Amino acid sequence: MINVTVWNENRHERNPDHVASKIYPHGIHGAIADYLCEQPGIEARTATLDEPEHGLTQEMLDATEVLVWWGHLAHGEVSDEVAARVQQRVLDGMGLIVLHSACMSKIFQRLMGTSGNAQWREGNDHERIWLIEPGHPIAEGLGLMIELEHEEMYGEYFDIPAPETLVFISWFSGGEVLRSGCCFTRGKGRIFYFRPGHEAYPTYHNPQIQRVLANAVRWAAPTGGPHAEFGNVKPREIIQSRSIYESEQS
Amino acid sequence: MINVTVWNENRHERNPDHVASKIYPHGIHGAIADYLCEQPGIEARTATLDEPEHGLTQEMLDATEVLVWWGHLAHGEVSDEVAARVQQRVLDGMGLIVLHSACMSKIFQRLMGTSGNAQWREGNDHERIWLIEPGHPIAEGLGLMIELEHEEMYGEYFDIPAPETLVFISWFSGGEVLRSGCCFTRGKGRIFYFRPGHEAYPTYHNPQIQRVLANAVRWAAPTGGPHAEFGNVKPREIIQSRSIYESEQS
Amino acid sequence: MINVTVWNENRHERNPDHVASKIYPHGIHGAIADYLCEQPGIEARTATLDEPEHGLTQEMLDATEVLVWWGHLAHGEVSDEVAARVQQRVLDGMGLIVLHSACMSKIFQRLMGTSGNAQWREGNDHERIWLIEPGHPIAEGLGLMIELEHEEMYGEYFDIPAPETLVFISWFSGGEVLRSGCCFTRGKGRIFYFRPGHEAYPTYHNPQIQRVLANAVRWAAPTGGPHAEFGNVKPREIIQSRSIYESEQS
Amino acid sequence: MINVTVWNENRHERNPDHVASKIYPHGIHGAIADYLCEQPGIEARTATLDEPEHGLTQEMLDATEVLVWWGHLAHGEVSDEVAARVQQRVLDGMGLIVLHSACMSKIFQRLMGTSGNAQWREGNDHERIWLIEPGHPIAEGLGLMIELEHEEMYGEYFDIPAPETLVFISWFSGGEVLRSGCCFTRGKGRIFYFRPGHEAYPTYHNPQIQRVLANAVRWAAPTGGPHAEFGNVKPREIIQSRSIYESEQS
Repeated sequence: MINVTVWNENRHERNPDHVASKIYPHGIHGAIADYLCEQPGIEARTATLDEPEHGLTQEMLDATEVLVWWGHLAHGEVSDEVAARVQQRVLDGMGLIVLHSACMSKIFQRLMGTSGNAQWREGNDHERIWLIEPGHPIAEGLGLMIELEHEEMYGEYFDIPAPETLVFISWFSGGEVLRSGCCFTRGKGRIFYFRPGHEAYPTYHNPQIQRVLANAVRWAAPTGGPHAEFGNVKPREIIQSRSIYESEQS
Repeated sequence: MINVTVWNENRHERNPDHVASKIYPHGIHGAIADYLCEQPGIEARTATLDEPEHGLTQEMLDATEVLVWWGHLAHGEVSDEVAARVQQRVLDGMGLIVLHSACMSKIFQRLMGTSGNAQWREGNDHERIWLIEPGHPIAEGLGLMIELEHEEMYGEYFDIPAPETLVFISWFSGGEVLRSGCCFTRGKGRIFYFRPGHEAYPTYHNPQIQRVLANAVRWAAPTGGPHAEFGNVKPREIIQSRSIYESEQS
Repeated sequence: MINVTVWNENRHERNPDHVASKIYPHGIHGAIADYLCEQPGIEARTATLDEPEHGLTQEMLDATEVLVWWGHLAHGEVSDEVAARVQQRVLDGMGLIVLHSACMSKIFQRLMGTSGNAQWREGNDHERIWLIEPGHPIAEGLGLMIELEHEEMYGEYFDIPAPETLVFISWFSGGEVLRSGCCFTRGKGRIFYFRPGHEAYPTYHNPQIQRVLANAVRWAAPTGGPHAEFGNVKPREIIQSRSIYESEQS
Repeated sequence: MINVTVWNENRHERNPDHVASKIYPHGIHGAIADYLCEQPGIEARTATLDEPEHGLTQEMLDATEVLVWWGHLAHGEVSDEVAARVQQRVLDGMGLIVLHSACMSKIFQRLMGTSGNAQWREGNDHERIWLIEPGHPIAEGLGLMIELEHEEMYGEYFDIPAPETLVFISWFSGGEVLRSGCCFTRGKGRIFYFRPGHEAYPTYHNPQIQRVLANAVRWAAPTGGPHAEFGNVKPREIIQSRSIYESEQS
């Protein structure tokens, strides 16, 4: 069972005048967590910005194997202390799925070393998400392209380090492209940035987008490797091995 | 269930004067397949050079999800036709685990585009295999270093493309290093090169080496992504989407 | 001075009924070589398919530091012997610039291990080539995007290994994207695949495309590193060094 | 002319009881800057921790094309403001050479997102630095291995993101390995981490180590690509291009 926490700043959706409140009546976090809970082997709960410590206490993080993060308006309201705590948990092995405008979140900036900035346009773009690595675990059960009739546009140059694996590239009707599905590793933690998910469109209700999320959670889940050990060590004994051929001759 | 075929040229082990015949009485392929068959979710059979079509008929390959390959003396005896067939199956999604001296096999050379050559020394080296990516699936259940008291040495410069992920680096008591656990993707197929396994040492009986093999088989198994489609295509209709904001205003 | 050879199959351009004969009266190779010769520090000559040994004798290759390759109709007419000779020169350090449909040339397939295949459409696409790595040497003097009003479309999935550095991504008006500027290393040789250049459009007369070619030649030129040495080596003496602190105390 | 600033915390060398004061009478920064100034096309000056703003005013950084950084004892004394300023200059295109224990400097941690920690041992190791990419610009003029009789040991697991290009791997007589020459890109800036250079050994007087530094400076120097542009953009006009074939028919 993979324990997932879906974190959301949860601001747009609580504004009754904002369309997001109709598309996501339980918030983006609620929609994603509901879907994930229906998937075999995944258990999901939620946390939001306005909870104490943003809902991300050390205890909560220690019990989280994969953290999903959506933020947009309120990156600056996330405390440096919590951002540092999340970063450390990623280095220790927690998976992290960074969604849409969270490319500019504190936690993603800290892990990448870059601004996460890009060109953008709100309103009326048509997005096609092309699969670049059909043999990757995140491609399981997908077709070669995901079509989203309405999405916000994010375009290159996108200020991220070159992904270790580039899984998706987006095409936008207005003339841009973006590296839109990007795998990274930091310490023992696996990170997946996935572009779609503007609050004003029902993107997280799209079955193929949902499938990407579930696949990404499975890919990013901790894999059971050893913990790093740092510090001062003694020289290791060199075993003066004799060749098996020499042994046979003697 | 992952269907594995363990292929071996099986020459050293059939020579009763060679120590390999004592270490691996059922061949290197037999030892590896026996171990893999004991692992949950893996089923393994074997094929060898001297069988018709080297045991790698189209039917056999179509039923193989991960192919493990050990070769040394007889790379040149593998037919070009079978090598091309294996390459095509990898591009179509079959995993491939390339062991030890098979870095100079026809199939690895065809997939990498390089010679696979390196410096080497037989006989009396002590090898330490350091884990570089403790968060990688191939690291599951391992420690930070695997110690092999006796192994053949392979040293840099190693003529391979830079691995997509470098999982292990080997240290040798004689003074060399090697990129010894290397992940690649070609088409939909995932490839893992793993250095250890000289025929004169009981390396494939070492529990940590065995664990790497099982982990690598699981990592390389096909992931259920879509098949590539090539050829001439028509332009795709651009949906003239209107912004949800515009819709609301109208 | 970087010695460049521009190779072309030179078939479309010699057909007086084909538009290529008007756009490139001296052949695509002639147009590219003429441009390169005007650049400081570059000297270019040409070679074509119908010359003896396709103009690529061992002597010619030994004198070539960067080889530019354009092919389309006649990949199968390139002899395996010459393809193997070019591959070996790349491993030994010669740069290689692979243009447009040469993604399916024998030499590129041999070096990549994949088919180089993609989706395609001839005729009426508009291409935008977005710069993904503005700090890369191949980006020198460019803007953030190159606009080509008319080009053939090549779309993902593109059957190549993940590039070591992805410099450009193309957007096509018909709805597709492509990794269109891709850096690879094989042995000591640096390889750049660059997508544009359909024979029916004046792409190689475009100043920004020309600039990419000159930048790529400079990037791919041999860098003066050591030659690889393979084969059997002796153990290296371990110097039993004493710490400088110990030395001081004694 | 490449303008280089060599930065050093300059603490060990000012302690007259420390051997570093004898090996580097003008400081590590002085030794490196003196060497670089002798190289054609490079001009170097220095800056140190105890200068106002650590010698890294905005004006100084704006005039710096490549910054070399050595730090060990006093990472914590570097102000967050200066670290942020250096980070931004890297994103804007300044090259950065990070030496030895500066893998744990604030600036490297900010750019990498990881701790930069490793195993270590002081005193009596013999280091061999193996060249993994003989075709890389940083390999120019080197042999296949650099031998250092006395160095501090840093061993894996090394907490850095996987380098975009791994140029060197170190072997240590005590039994460890390290990824010791690592290329990264952040924004437009190119970063090279190079391991050797313990203050108690004359490593930066070694001609091959010096050659690596000069090569790295040239590789990391800004390349003249365009500046990134972020923010809100309008849709781009799609040119309804007609095929050249259609044009001919009409």
